Amino acid sequence: MKATIKSIYNDTDKYLNQQIELEGWIRTSRSSKAFGFIELNDGTFFKNIQIVFEEGLENFKEIEKLPLSSSIKVKGILVTTPEAKQPFEVKASEIEIEGYSTAEYPLQKKRHTFEYMRTIAHLRPRANTFNAVFRVRSVLAYAIHKFFQERGFVYVHTPIFTASDAEGAGEMFRVSTLDFNNLPLTEDKKVDFSKDFFGKEINLTVTGQLEAEAFALAYKDVYTFGPTFRAENSNTARHAAEFWMIEPEIAFADINDNMQLAEDMMKYIIKYVMENAKEEMEFFNNFVDKGLFERLQNVVNSDFGRITYTEAVELLKKSGEEFQYPVEWGMDLQTEHERYISEKVFKGPVFVTDYPKEIKAFYMRLNEDNKTVAAMDLLVPGVGEIIGGSQREERLEVLEQKIIDNGMDPEDYWWYLELRKFGGTKHAGYGLGFERAVMYITGMSNIRDVIPFPRTVKSAEF
Amino acid sequence: MKATIKSIYNDTDKYLNQQIELEGWIRTSRSSKAFGFIELNDGTFFKNIQIVFEEGLENFKEIEKLPLSSSIKVKGILVTTPEAKQPFEVKASEIEIEGYSTAEYPLQKKRHTFEYMRTIAHLRPRANTFNAVFRVRSVLAYAIHKFFQERGFVYVHTPIFTASDAEGAGEMFRVSTLDFNNLPLTEDKKVDFSKDFFGKEINLTVTGQLEAEAFALAYKDVYTFGPTFRAENSNTARHAAEFWMIEPEIAFADINDNMQLAEDMMKYIIKYVMENAKEEMEFFNNFVDKGLFERLQNVVNSDFGRITYTEAVELLKKSGEEFQYPVEWGMDLQTEHERYISEKVFKGPVFVTDYPKEIKAFYMRLNEDNKTVAAMDLLVPGVGEIIGGSQREERLEVLEQKIIDNGMDPEDYWWYLELRKFGGTKHAGYGLGFERAVMYITGMSNIRDVIPFPRTVKSAEF
Repeated sequence: MKATIKSIYNDTDKYLNQQIELEGWIRTSRSSKAFGFIELNDGTFFKNIQIVFEEGLENFKEIEKLPLSSSIKVKGILVTTPEAKQPFEVKASEIEIEGYSTAEYPLQKKRHTFEYMRTIAHLRPRANTFNAVFRVRSVLAYAIHKFFQERGFVYVHTPIFTASDAEGAGEMFRVSTLDFNNLPLTEDKKVDFSKDFFGKEINLTVTGQLEAEAFALAYKDVYTFGPTFRAENSNTARHAAEFWMIEPEIAFADINDNMQLAEDMMKYIIKYVMENAKEEMEFFNNFVDKGLFERLQNVVNSDFGRITYTEAVELLKKSGEEFQYPVEWGMDLQTEHERYISEKVFKGPVFVTDYPKEIKAFYMRLNEDNKTVAAMDLLVPGVGEIIGGSQREERLEVLEQKIIDNGMDPEDYWWYLELRKFGGTKHAGYGLGFERAVMYITGMSNIRDVIPFPRTVKSAEF
Repeated sequence: MKATIKSIYNDTDKYLNQQIELEGWIRTSRSSKAFGFIELNDGTFFKNIQIVFEEGLENFKEIEKLPLSSSIKVKGILVTTPEAKQPFEVKASEIEIEGYSTAEYPLQKKRHTFEYMRTIAHLRPRANTFNAVFRVRSVLAYAIHKFFQERGFVYVHTPIFTASDAEGAGEMFRVSTLDFNNLPLTEDKKVDFSKDFFGKEINLTVTGQLEAEAFALAYKDVYTFGPTFRAENSNTARHAAEFWMIEPEIAFADINDNMQLAEDMMKYIIKYVMENAKEEMEFFNNFVDKGLFERLQNVVNSDFGRITYTEAVELLKKSGEEFQYPVEWGMDLQTEHERYISEKVFKGPVFVTDYPKEIKAFYMRLNEDNKTVAAMDLLVPGVGEIIGGSQREERLEVLEQKIIDNGMDPEDYWWYLELRKFGGTKHAGYGLGFERAVMYITGMSNIRDVIPFPRTVKSAEF
């Protein structure tokens, strides 16, 4: 009977004392003169299964010497091992070699640094830590889809190629099919982008929000989940040039509905991963971040706090803490401030709302006070900001003025403005950086270690 | 009690004869002197709900004149309408205006061409056809995730930025942060890409397959689902510069396992969409493609045929058909040939396998005959090829030779070759173009009409 390690762990009784067939890779192996033991992993489950093979095996000598990561097919009987650490093992009657490895296999049985592992990104998912990271990444991605789809949200693929610069950040990647060594020029000796693939200058998107708004005004509740790009020259543990983002957008909804949605989502996805990647999460809690479960349970079980930016600034000023960046109303909060508020004041997740308009994007709704906008950032202990969002400006004239005030051209935003002209509604949304979420849920501290093949400044291997 | 149109259709009894609150957009409206009728849609469901309002309403005159697509909040009682076409309606006691529209709203109640609708992509999801298309797109995307996740596949985000050209097609988009009007040059006057963001030439990916293979050799079963890019200068109804692709990759598996997976997937996702987007699918069957249900049922209920390329060529030659492209062994099959095989010969979906090696990619496994490779294309009636895949070449020396034969440099593929060195296994995979799948399942015939904001040659609006 064909089996996988996952099927055996999930339904042991079905396979116990049966003749089974398994395929997988050798994680470790050792032998004495009469016996050999292989820890086999077949990729379906975090844990290995032990294979015992005996001298009587026709190819005993060859199996015994197989280099790590060789792939084999095993036939044998699954038996319980009441006296051993593992609950069961397979007594092999036949082992067939599927693919040889060599002694140069870079993942020999010793500790490797995460830095080294990045140089073998094609092999690192075979190592425990990364195997756990990328399975959690997959389970988390699914949890996000499940959360939104079960609530009737429509998944929108917003475009990657864009002519606009939604964040006004300017740090974008240009895309072109022009011959760089022979660029077409206009009469005034500038590059002639009308000759380019799209007939104009095109960049890679930094957000799908504006397009998501168009769809929210048709479907009420929508979300995006796709790659976004920043050409930021920051070589930090939290920045990548290419990362995935989730951006829900909800119509007939205000900033409070938005916070409720974010809170519900965070609790749902954490619970889902804890339940559906148990072994991996235990590994992280034991070996990567000892306080992980406590921190995540705290999120699941707490009511998220809410505080305005203005109140937060007051608290920080009165705190008596020595901050590297002294706090003044009008400044953006730094990670040290964010962590103080969530870790010391609220001891849990907290939304900070109503930031000064000058430090937030043009599309955020202007509050009555004319000084703040209906922004909301979710701060969590250990990290700081994990979600940023806002109620959107739905008033045509106010939005138009804000576009102008931000030095942008309303012409470029004609369709975005039209959304306010033809039956606009109150609406809101937020962005969750997917990699930040993976880091938060696994306790991994470098973004390069939660992306299968990370792309950062001066680095795009594989 | 708050309600949505979806909740009312799903659980009518709960709301019947109750005071309810609804929010949505006016799709159509008409009135006589004493009564008014609004067809309201709130985005949660394909169908509208009828709102009846009476002269007694305080703002009767204003509501009566609201332009299409204005957004309103309705309070009223849900009542059955046994004599009318619709099963129920809402007798409004209060209608509040949330957002005005104007008489210039481009989607007035008349037929518009799909070409025109592309010029208002920000509004077209408010029209029936596109509302149905983009909801089906969302449901289909979820069905794909559900299918793979339920089977234990790991979802891998393969990189968008790439230094390699996996298909050898050469039609890629270059990405850069260099100043085009002031490009840095090397000593021999070529563009100096070492000064670029990644320190070298980078393109947008055309496939995630090679990276997915690395993960399949750790997890056994994986899949990708992400955007891919082709800078093909083809202005056809089937080509876009940016489209999404699904690429499963399975280890310890051959071409037959691969075909079985593709067949299971196709049946699963079609069934899922038929069940979870019923109203939309009925709309397509009635108004877009009259033969749709018959065609899809045929796929769900049939065993997919299997035929080798060589046999297919024989059949085509003997068919007596007048093809635009005469058939010879060695040539790639054209759509006319593919459709003949699936529509006339098999009257259903069919896998064509074992194509001449010259017309297929370097990574496909060379067959014993040394002339063909273990490729598989799935052909379906009405479309032709919808899936392309293969068993991969797992033999290191054979793969190395094929890379050289294809004029590529083995050095560039060092990590891909290493996958064959360190415990390689038999493995296989395929690609499904997501937009092709949406077109197939909805009957829509232009790829521009199934992408929220399509990007094609000379066109990247919004």
